[in-house]
Amino acid sequence: MSYVYVIDEERHLLGVLSLYRLLLSPPTTPVVDLIAPTTIRVRATADREVAARLLTDRNLLAIPVVDDDDHLLGIITEDDVADVLLEEAAEDIERLGGSQPLEVPYRLASLPLLVRKRLPWLLLLFVAGAYTGTVMQAFQAELAQAVALAFFIPLLIGTGGNIGSQTVTLIVRSMALGEVALRDIAWIIWKEIRVGLALGAIMAVIAFGRAVLLGVGNDVSAVVAVAILAISLWSATVAATLPLILRRIGIDPAVVSAPLITTLVDGTGLVIYFETARVMLAL
Amino acid sequence: MSYVYVIDEERHLLGVLSLYRLLLSPPTTPVVDLIAPTTIRVRATADREVAARLLTDRNLLAIPVVDDDDHLLGIITEDDVADVLLEEAAEDIERLGGSQPLEVPYRLASLPLLVRKRLPWLLLLFVAGAYTGTVMQAFQAELAQAVALAFFIPLLIGTGGNIGSQTVTLIVRSMALGEVALRDIAWIIWKEIRVGLALGAIMAVIAFGRAVLLGVGNDVSAVVAVAILAISLWSATVAATLPLILRRIGIDPAVVSAPLITTLVDGTGLVIYFETARVMLAL
Repeated sequence: MSYVYVIDEERHLLGVLSLYRLLLSPPTTPVVDLIAPTTIRVRATADREVAARLLTDRNLLAIPVVDDDDHLLGIITEDDVADVLLEEAAEDIERLGGSQPLEVPYRLASLPLLVRKRLPWLLLLFVAGAYTGTVMQAFQAELAQAVALAFFIPLLIGTGGNIGSQTVTLIVRSMALGEVALRDIAWIIWKEIRVGLALGAIMAVIAFGRAVLLGVGNDVSAVVAVAILAISLWSATVAATLPLILRRIGIDPAVVSAPLITTLVDGTGLVIYFETARVMLAL
Repeated sequence: MSYVYVIDEERHLLGVLSLYRLLLSPPTTPVVDLIAPTTIRVRATADREVAARLLTDRNLLAIPVVDDDDHLLGIITEDDVADVLLEEAAEDIERLGGSQPLEVPYRLASLPLLVRKRLPWLLLLFVAGAYTGTVMQAFQAELAQAVALAFFIPLLIGTGGNIGSQTVTLIVRSMALGEVALRDIAWIIWKEIRVGLALGAIMAVIAFGRAVLLGVGNDVSAVVAVAILAISLWSATVAATLPLILRRIGIDPAVVSAPLITTLVDGTGLVIYFETARVMLAL
């Protein structure tokens, strides 16, 4: 439907005029008789997501933007909203990939720009992950006694990171779509605990088989299986909680990118692994 | 502008009729005199991205869809296109997070559904990463001689994975936007080689400092620094090439998710690290 917004002399919004109605009425009808009053409008100070959601929910082609005194300032149309939503999706994608949004096409991005956009994340993740060295050093006695434990480090922390990435992506997406919020934290964690346990149990069986195939013996294989179950549970739980808490303290949860959660569960996963080994192998 | 498509008795598309033009012309004018011929249309068999791009590029509100004989079948409107583009962006986000698209809201997703959508990726990544165990086993003599080498495994493969994730995300995004294609592979690799070297050189300095702080001695610290430079270069190059080659052999490059590239560079990064150690420490 094609329509125009009608205002009075002081630019107060009176309503909308449908062109179909105009077309079908006698040429002499005053415009004021054809106006349909509209209560839908957004304040200029409202968040752009409010406007986007109003438009999408009510399936409108446009909504008027007004100031505090209901003076018409302009309109927002559906294609503006699509651009906004697409832009935000694109930024989420870039952030999930662990880079700041480029803001220019990749082919036009200069070398210094690419380095500048990517380095802060790499440094942050390096610093966040640097404690893994301390963790490994703390367990060097265990490591020296059973070098075979080292074989599974990449696989264990990789699986923990992958489960964490999945959870973070699903939760951040749901938050962006307004499906979940902080008040849902209890059932989200409960859901992810069960998903983590189910995924971890399956991965434990496979990891045990892989360890036996590598010929490291049943003892170390059992440690690997128990550790992967515990790490899966832990990763899913941490990854479910973190975006909600960050939102709570005012940080955009899209920045809890997959690489960041990976780094966070790397070191804690190592502690779980070596503590499991210490107990089960009596090191 | 509000307009209607006009067809003849056999549903051949004749053109478009603007409602403004109808409004402004005398009531007795035959419709046929007011039609503007249109050459813009899409075949029903065309890819939905073709329609989306036509609409976006020409800033249209709708385009007609025709069969092979130019009979009008229906129209695609701008809000359909926004939905299509947003849906694809959402799927890309979920894939980059290493999960198959859920297709239902997270809060409605059952436990079995979540496990079913997430397990295939975890298994694939586990199997793809299982060779890291073999790699580590192959270097167990070096590891036993210098246990300190193990301290940096999570940090080194983490950094390699992070750089690979960044590159994959940027390239997949550029491909989705039509900015780069397979013919661009040479300059993309050249660009990523330089970015990888620049990032790697900075990370090498920081990694050297971290290793010295951990007290592992200058020799091992130098190995860590050289390895992180080589791994950065390698990860950026592999991650730049893979999406383009996958597209070439007909696989959606969005499936080269960040976790997959991480897993791929994990094991090769370990080879680089231990080979560097073998040469530099004369193990």
